[in-house]
Amino acid sequence: MSLLVTGSIGIDTVETPFGKHEDVIGGSAIYFSYAASFFAPVRLVGVVGEDAPRSLFKVFDSRDVDTTGLEVRKGSKTFRWHGSYVKDMNEAVTVEVDLNVLAERAPKIPENFRDSRYVFLANTHPVLQQEMLCCLKHPRLIVADTMNLWIQTEQQELRKLLKQIHGLVLNDGEARMLTGKKNLIDAARDVLKLGPKFVVIKKGEHGCLMCSERDTFVLPAFPAHKVVDPTGAGDSFAGGMMGYLATQGTFSPATIKRALAFGTVVASYAIADVSLGGLKSTDRDQIDDRWHEYKSAMSF
Amino acid sequence: MSLLVTGSIGIDTVETPFGKHEDVIGGSAIYFSYAASFFAPVRLVGVVGEDAPRSLFKVFDSRDVDTTGLEVRKGSKTFRWHGSYVKDMNEAVTVEVDLNVLAERAPKIPENFRDSRYVFLANTHPVLQQEMLCCLKHPRLIVADTMNLWIQTEQQELRKLLKQIHGLVLNDGEARMLTGKKNLIDAARDVLKLGPKFVVIKKGEHGCLMCSERDTFVLPAFPAHKVVDPTGAGDSFAGGMMGYLATQGTFSPATIKRALAFGTVVASYAIADVSLGGLKSTDRDQIDDRWHEYKSAMSF
Repeated sequence: MSLLVTGSIGIDTVETPFGKHEDVIGGSAIYFSYAASFFAPVRLVGVVGEDAPRSLFKVFDSRDVDTTGLEVRKGSKTFRWHGSYVKDMNEAVTVEVDLNVLAERAPKIPENFRDSRYVFLANTHPVLQQEMLCCLKHPRLIVADTMNLWIQTEQQELRKLLKQIHGLVLNDGEARMLTGKKNLIDAARDVLKLGPKFVVIKKGEHGCLMCSERDTFVLPAFPAHKVVDPTGAGDSFAGGMMGYLATQGTFSPATIKRALAFGTVVASYAIADVSLGGLKSTDRDQIDDRWHEYKSAMSF
Repeated sequence: MSLLVTGSIGIDTVETPFGKHEDVIGGSAIYFSYAASFFAPVRLVGVVGEDAPRSLFKVFDSRDVDTTGLEVRKGSKTFRWHGSYVKDMNEAVTVEVDLNVLAERAPKIPENFRDSRYVFLANTHPVLQQEMLCCLKHPRLIVADTMNLWIQTEQQELRKLLKQIHGLVLNDGEARMLTGKKNLIDAARDVLKLGPKFVVIKKGEHGCLMCSERDTFVLPAFPAHKVVDPTGAGDSFAGGMMGYLATQGTFSPATIKRALAFGTVVASYAIADVSLGGLKSTDRDQIDDRWHEYKSAMSF
């Protein structure tokens, strides 16, 4: 049941065709934690600077998220990201990024977190991702995310990481970049040769694709007509998926498929409002209802 | 059961990353008829020039396709299309197109075809599509396809057509162009306001989306790793869908969903080889097997 996540915590400025939102709470570990906490207790490891707004520490007030691993580092500044979806709601253009505290040493995993069985390494430098793994006693499922930057500049370290994880989650452009394959099924199969037992390719509004040695399956996105801010959709997807898996005893194809469907549904809430607004507006009952709606929409 | 199709019949030259194929048989009505004939008898209406190759008249030799409505017009030349998928397997770039006989008067619908209950108006000029409708006695289901060219140049005629049909099939770019809506669910709903009872938006490798007043559902494409030539995928999809519908008594949401799944599966065969090679390589048993595989891949 113990689900650990490490990743970025940041302050975002997001521009969409519907307006600009300055200094809102964001970061991969934040979206992941909130999404996963609908399913299982979450242990969050991350670091912010001393400028972190008070509201950040209240995000998880009513949630089962253990923030013991949230370090507030003196003399450092919080990670900031400024992105725009004005041209394309499917792909953020980074206007400005200040790594700040993320460019310093990684946060520590608290002693009482080290027995975590389920681990999600949200997107960050692959060397830091590997460091995190060293401290874990007997992880049962390790899944990582990555990004184009590391594929381009740190591919050797990324390949080392891939040999140590069970699952990789990445988007379609990244999968093509990592493997040089245009066809996504081919790309997914090539990723498996690099180490992971399964790979999930996120395709934004087009859903996702899962590939393991035995199985390949595809799921469409939940048909959402309310898309206000896509920031955090991928992390919320991963949170829903890992949160559900952490409550299950097996990783059978059927279980993974149900987990992907939960990820899909949670992501559909995440994009319906700015920052965490979409996730905050829902609860487990609504998620379950939408999950059943989604399931029946696809059975024929 | 009587399924009528009118549309283009042509000679294609197709370039893909795997090679160039000159003077192969193509055209929307050809792909549609072949695909639909796995399910129901098809009545084909179309016109070619006197230069049409002998092989064209043998395409349907072993198929239940009535070619009484296939006119060979003296003094005219057959429609030719030269397209390239070298840059992007998802979207053809037209290198050259010679409308030839397609720019002349429409072919006639034979008297014994006029009682057809199921009708597919494959992509052609919306005025010609409307003319076809006039001759039909009591059609039960009329579905049309269209293209960006008519949306841009003949939108008034296209809108007249939309008031006379039950369903419209078009691709994602065309749906956005017709409605000015970026979000595909919004675009689909706007299409419904123009007349059709349902709209199917084809998204190529990302599957399709169906929208009616009551229902919205999405299906992923069959996860195909063998994509040799995408020409005719959309027409084969429509053929599988309409062919199956023509064998059913109802248009319930479940029936339409099953029909879309058959279209998806038939399209996955169509793209696996050049010209009609992919469709010719399969049969109804294989299609049914893949349909069940697809169905089970998506149930969770």
